[in-house]
Amino acid sequence: MSDGLHKPGRRLIGIDDGPFDRKRGANVLVVGVVCRGDRLDGVLTTHVRKDGWNATDRLIAMIRDSKFSAQLHGILLDGITLGGLNIVDLPKLARDTGLPAIAVIRRKPDRQGMEDACGRLPNQGRRVAMLRRVGEVHEAEHVFFQVQGLSPDEARRVVDSTAIFGYIPEPIRMAHLIGGGVITGQSGHRA
Amino acid sequence: MSDGLHKPGRRLIGIDDGPFDRKRGANVLVVGVVCRGDRLDGVLTTHVRKDGWNATDRLIAMIRDSKFSAQLHGILLDGITLGGLNIVDLPKLARDTGLPAIAVIRRKPDRQGMEDACGRLPNQGRRVAMLRRVGEVHEAEHVFFQVQGLSPDEARRVVDSTAIFGYIPEPIRMAHLIGGGVITGQSGHRA
Repeated sequence: MSDGLHKPGRRLIGIDDGPFDRKRGANVLVVGVVCRGDRLDGVLTTHVRKDGWNATDRLIAMIRDSKFSAQLHGILLDGITLGGLNIVDLPKLARDTGLPAIAVIRRKPDRQGMEDACGRLPNQGRRVAMLRRVGEVHEAEHVFFQVQGLSPDEARRVVDSTAIFGYIPEPIRMAHLIGGGVITGQSGHRA
Repeated sequence: MSDGLHKPGRRLIGIDDGPFDRKRGANVLVVGVVCRGDRLDGVLTTHVRKDGWNATDRLIAMIRDSKFSAQLHGILLDGITLGGLNIVDLPKLARDTGLPAIAVIRRKPDRQGMEDACGRLPNQGRRVAMLRRVGEVHEAEHVFFQVQGLSPDEARRVVDSTAIFGYIPEPIRMAHLIGGGVITGQSGHRA
């Protein structure tokens, strides 16, 4: 399924959340950046609840309802949670959009630490089950990832080939800069 | 002043407003995209009042107060107004930021039409004077522009060399897509 996703010309959406208030239930901006190679084609946005349960449904609606829905080839996420511990059900996201979905993680995830964090919120069992459903953690050149709907080898090629500036796939990097700039007034590094 | 602004490695900010309500005084999102070549380095945002008077001051503050202030080489604007007829005083923007400022316009501006539109708002005389102060309209390869703080020839090279995808300088094109995506939930074309 979707071999060749790493090739130029494939249109990918990279997703990240913006900075948010610490209080549970806060409204969190989520930015989706549609790119073909290094060209920005469009920007999608939605909102999720901090530590809530609606991340998966909001992402599915954002992608399905967009003008790009028929032309996307894959989804790249900055990690498996949005807005704190609002967990993305990666298998459901891939199934309901019909697209391979890759969650990119900078550091090898501390699964036990995440499961403990879930214990400070209601419904720990349901959150832990979702985290476990996401599947194995794989290693790319500079980052780690989890994937649904695509072979780990092909996902690794996508992650490595889209990291143009630095280690993070370009659509995720751009979504991160946009979310920060919109919420706080400025984002980025001078380096 | 600032010859060589069109060369690679120069850091430019492209500015555009997001979609806004028709009613006068509405709050209008303004997005600034900091790019070096085709690399997105950061995103700045501010707000102006529809048909108000604060566009120039808000842009000066957004640029001066940002972490990029010492490293920017030039400013690109999508036209000379933000949020309706909130006119940017281009000479003041260039002077107070110490940066060359180029306003890019897709079509040759209908100066008389703009001055008539100012007549439907308070203080027509002050708006018309600001429009006239911006200076001569020059022609680039595919678009028109007005410029302060830089020779028209060098400004033309900047406009032409930064229009990578289509006719609009890339930082302005990106600012436009971000503003639309944040305000309406989606921006861009499938083409």
